Amino acid sequence: MTTPRLATFTVNGLTRYGAVCDHGVVDLSARHANDYPTLREVIAAGALQRIVDEADHTAPDFARDKVVFQPPIPQPEKIICVGVNYPERNAEYKDNTEAPKFPSMFMRTARSFVGHGASLVRPKASKLLDYEGELTLVIGKPGRHIAEADALDHVAAITLCNEGTIRDWVRHAKFNVTQGKNFDHTGGLGPWILPFTDEAQIADIRLTTRVNGDIRQDDRTSRMIFGFRYLIHYISTFTTLVPGDLIITGTPAGAGARSDPPVYLKPGDIIEVEADGIGVLRNGVVDEAD
Amino acid sequence: MTTPRLATFTVNGLTRYGAVCDHGVVDLSARHANDYPTLREVIAAGALQRIVDEADHTAPDFARDKVVFQPPIPQPEKIICVGVNYPERNAEYKDNTEAPKFPSMFMRTARSFVGHGASLVRPKASKLLDYEGELTLVIGKPGRHIAEADALDHVAAITLCNEGTIRDWVRHAKFNVTQGKNFDHTGGLGPWILPFTDEAQIADIRLTTRVNGDIRQDDRTSRMIFGFRYLIHYISTFTTLVPGDLIITGTPAGAGARSDPPVYLKPGDIIEVEADGIGVLRNGVVDEAD
Repeated sequence: MTTPRLATFTVNGLTRYGAVCDHGVVDLSARHANDYPTLREVIAAGALQRIVDEADHTAPDFARDKVVFQPPIPQPEKIICVGVNYPERNAEYKDNTEAPKFPSMFMRTARSFVGHGASLVRPKASKLLDYEGELTLVIGKPGRHIAEADALDHVAAITLCNEGTIRDWVRHAKFNVTQGKNFDHTGGLGPWILPFTDEAQIADIRLTTRVNGDIRQDDRTSRMIFGFRYLIHYISTFTTLVPGDLIITGTPAGAGARSDPPVYLKPGDIIEVEADGIGVLRNGVVDEAD
Repeated sequence: MTTPRLATFTVNGLTRYGAVCDHGVVDLSARHANDYPTLREVIAAGALQRIVDEADHTAPDFARDKVVFQPPIPQPEKIICVGVNYPERNAEYKDNTEAPKFPSMFMRTARSFVGHGASLVRPKASKLLDYEGELTLVIGKPGRHIAEADALDHVAAITLCNEGTIRDWVRHAKFNVTQGKNFDHTGGLGPWILPFTDEAQIADIRLTTRVNGDIRQDDRTSRMIFGFRYLIHYISTFTTLVPGDLIITGTPAGAGARSDPPVYLKPGDIIEVEADGIGVLRNGVVDEAD
């Protein structure tokens, strides 16, 4: 059995979803779009593993190089990002504050992301585009006031994020980083989602970010300050989590802004976020068109 | 002609939209839902004024007391809130900082709001529920990099917001107010939207918030630090605005947390946000159910 990897993609101008196998892509929307228009509805119906199993016995419909990857969930109800969640990240701010008691959180729009293989857009408003590699949880079962003991029952899948950031615009406001985190097409999501199996799948994943082949971030999810169970519990204290919601769980030390001197992304750079067992999310960089 | 007021509501368990007249409610979704499932699609099609005009010649379908108001746009792509946008608001923080050069911004989920007449929910996690009355713009024409001179061409409608906040949870994080702004059902939107006519309609509206009849906030939109045109221009620098997006433009001084001692909302309170020419958004308060 190949590793089950579900992706959203366009081919011949149409958006579809399917299973990405070593030998090609099985078009599952051709078979299931009436019941489940997108992977979000597949997840909501609890049908992820079933269509994965089905794809395992099906010949591919497209060659891998014929599909253009999109973010796996086209329009999540919410995308919640966690800040300052790996050791040394709080110290990087050099503001002499103690480690936070609660996680920092902000939201991003779906349109701030592109899919695997697409280019991040360095905007006209700023040249300070930076990368942040992160593991991302995809919520399956809805819930509020979720106990830590039950938290992982609510995870349907995992994926990767390059939580691309415009560094000067995160400091525009008295509070909040909203602006610098929400420039159109400055982050990447994907390349695909993997069905969540058990805690061992995510508990100690090595997560690395490379720029033009150089390793810039390299850490393990076991070192997160606020773990996966706690994050789901905490977030569900204030909001109801629903199928397709993304929780982007924070980035290790080593973003370009923390280098001395800072180094930002520029057109032509290739950024790769890699996690053991998940794959590589690869994005280039282009300048925003005039 | 009556003032054209478009609302989303439930009646007999079904969600519909229509025109709220003095003598009742005209069910416009019965006539247009095939083309426009919600008011968001009405706005996207530029059909708001046309269906308003049509309702003006139509007998009402429901008595006003038979409909249960919902937030006017059921699921906006994004809800962007502006912080610290009236005089004396920055001073209320007592942190000796100068007035900000750029607006503070955060996002809220649709599920953090209820409609007119419904009760705000004081959560189990905190008793520090507070009100914030605000004027809200509803985007009509999509756009990015919108010049201030053209900004109001992108506004389709206006409405009111009680941008209810859990005060201790906005300070949980090192940065960002996300958590305290996103408890389910802690804010109100509505009661309806009014089609935007021209700048004079919004330039100098008196905006008041009352709790149990006592005026707590009382200011005019002409005193906003960052005006409507600038906000649209600024936001569109980083994100593409689309039909149905809400821009919640900030609250005057006088929220309960700024009183000495602070006074928070409690079950049984009635909060009214009123604006000249728009109406009154009225919400009660209940404790979250066990």
